[in-house]
Amino acid sequence: PANKKLLFLPGDGIGPEVMRQVRRVIDWMDRKRGMTFDVSEGLVGGAAIDAYGVPLNDATLAEALAVDAVMLGAVGGPKWDNPTDYTKRPEAGLLALRKELGLFANLRPAVVFDALVDASTLKADVIRGLDIMIVRELTGGVYFGEPRGITDIGNGERRGVNTQVYTTSEIRRVARVAFELARKRNNKVHSMEKANVMESGLLWRQEVTKLHQEEYSDVTLEHMYADNGAMQLLKNPKQFDVIVTDNLFGDILSDEASMMTGSLGMLPSASLGAPDADGKRKAMYEPVHGSAPDIAGRDLANPCATLLSFAMALRYSFDLDEDAKLIEKAIQNVLGGGMRTADIMAPGMARCSTTVMGDSILREL
Amino acid sequence: PANKKLLFLPGDGIGPEVMRQVRRVIDWMDRKRGMTFDVSEGLVGGAAIDAYGVPLNDATLAEALAVDAVMLGAVGGPKWDNPTDYTKRPEAGLLALRKELGLFANLRPAVVFDALVDASTLKADVIRGLDIMIVRELTGGVYFGEPRGITDIGNGERRGVNTQVYTTSEIRRVARVAFELARKRNNKVHSMEKANVMESGLLWRQEVTKLHQEEYSDVTLEHMYADNGAMQLLKNPKQFDVIVTDNLFGDILSDEASMMTGSLGMLPSASLGAPDADGKRKAMYEPVHGSAPDIAGRDLANPCATLLSFAMALRYSFDLDEDAKLIEKAIQNVLGGGMRTADIMAPGMARCSTTVMGDSILREL
Ligand SMILES: CC(C)[C@H](C(=O)O)[C@@H](O)C(=O)O
Ligand SMILES: CC(C)[C@H](C(=O)O)[C@@H](O)C(=O)O
Repeated sequence: PANKKLLFLPGDGIGPEVMRQVRRVIDWMDRKRGMTFDVSEGLVGGAAIDAYGVPLNDATLAEALAVDAVMLGAVGGPKWDNPTDYTKRPEAGLLALRKELGLFANLRPAVVFDALVDASTLKADVIRGLDIMIVRELTGGVYFGEPRGITDIGNGERRGVNTQVYTTSEIRRVARVAFELARKRNNKVHSMEKANVMESGLLWRQEVTKLHQEEYSDVTLEHMYADNGAMQLLKNPKQFDVIVTDNLFGDILSDEASMMTGSLGMLPSASLGAPDADGKRKAMYEPVHGSAPDIAGRDLANPCATLLSFAMALRYSFDLDEDAKLIEKAIQNVLGGGMRTADIMAPGMARCSTTVMGDSILREL
Repeated sequence: PANKKLLFLPGDGIGPEVMRQVRRVIDWMDRKRGMTFDVSEGLVGGAAIDAYGVPLNDATLAEALAVDAVMLGAVGGPKWDNPTDYTKRPEAGLLALRKELGLFANLRPAVVFDALVDASTLKADVIRGLDIMIVRELTGGVYFGEPRGITDIGNGERRGVNTQVYTTSEIRRVARVAFELARKRNNKVHSMEKANVMESGLLWRQEVTKLHQEEYSDVTLEHMYADNGAMQLLKNPKQFDVIVTDNLFGDILSDEASMMTGSLGMLPSASLGAPDADGKRKAMYEPVHGSAPDIAGRDLANPCATLLSFAMALRYSFDLDEDAKLIEKAIQNVLGGGMRTADIMAPGMARCSTTVMGDSILREL
């Protein structure tokens, strides 16, 4: 079989150190599971700004377009926070990757790990066993809509504008991903918007309803206003199976859901494009957590979210479900054994560094 | 002194039954505290659609503009959910009131009542004593921005558009309310937006920073991305004192915060306009909860949020702080005595109806 082509974009902050643990797992897979990964590496975010003056240069983008999957660490940090020029912010590199690769479906599992039930600020019985899949639209909405910008309107006044825009096909393709996932899970989709206030949300609701009637009437579909969704997530999270929502609501609701789990340092994500003629999708995998500049470079970060993102890559980009499960199981066992990085440390557990967490997982493997 | 003019807009669902309890408290104040409230009543939301074909008619709006304060119950319900004509939805009545009265500052306290600490899905020690004031911008942003709408773009495709727009003065006036409130509380303001993605959020951040430097440098100001805000609220809610944010983020974050308290049926809100030459502000007071059509008309709803909204009216519109405190204290005592409507019922407490809750509060008074 052809070599599996991966592009590593470690990015900023703790990105490089958590990605290093993925390298180790890949080495192990090459040796013990007879795989051949071709791993190239590039710069994105602040690291790319420092090196090239832009958060994503053309060569890196070309490479990202050429590989089977991109593994991203994290971008951003106070060093690059100030510029008001959007094209010069670390986030712009991430947004450009999403847009140029056409990664319209962002899959964010909000899962509670048994060993970490007590790490949440929510009561254990509310979240134990929680397993929600949030599907966030990732290449549309207010993130990319035009017109946008800040203009002087006289008298010392300025005006800031962004545009929320969705089309029928943008809505249908991401809703389709949600329905397909639901069929493999508990067959229930909640679609969230503000159709009571926003026409773009009303279109969202109408198109999701239509697609459901046409092709997915076997799946249970419920519509919920996004503000109510933010409440229901807290009130009774286990009512949800798959949630599909737009780029901006998805940003907020998925962060709420992931913090609820108490397992933020454990949560992976996958961003997928449309299948091509051979059924292959462009894809990028990254942890849900950010670049955590405060602990960067100190071997403190939790590499599990990034390792689990790699497991998602094995599953979604390379059809290696068995190997994905091996990694997931190894992580569960290590947690079960009491190993904890600082972010998930609890009384009676063994506190360990990024590297030692990696060691332990490799030993399990 | 002149009579105090109030317009009651009970609205839909449980609105009328919770507002009835406010009537009783007003009667008591007229009799026992020597007040003279002139209370008129009108229709809004679904009730107004049924009666007049529109969710807010001109006469009711004129009355709302003429009184000292509006007391609103709740609007909306499945009966009026279907129309895709935005001007014919119950919510349109509420939005028109906010806009026409110029109620740009929506104050939503997220407070945990001692007696209800265990009602939250969050751990008691995380939320005990929580007291956050969320200031939500209420007359701008994506709720009112133009252009908006749904258009056919050919090939069976439609396009839904909304516009997020803020100007310098819109941002400054609501930030001012937040800073002023913080000075009377714990002197800390968190401003939330997505300045890393949206220019309107960047303008927000810049203008809040400028106003802070010019006039409120004694107040601690922190900026937070709204997605991080959604996480931090869950992680460590007590880090917050006053939060100021835009209309849409405020909708979601304040709902998240209020559900966190476990006291949703207890939370009031105030929506305020700019002070006129005499320092008087147009104002509307309403519970944070919705119209709860499922329990409407069954004497089950919790009237406390609406009664506490009336207490806010006494405080903000009539400068009757002492009387506001009387009502707040009466409610606390009744809760302390074990009375609970269904929404806050807990083992060992006495379950009661809307009316009996009202009776008990009046007895306390
Ligand atoms: C870093 C930022 C641009 C990004 C977003 O807003 O999408 C992040 O919050 C995320 O959720 O991946
Ligand atoms: C009913 C709806 C229009 C309203 C809003 O979105 O503002 C409600 O959710 C609120 O928060 O008062």
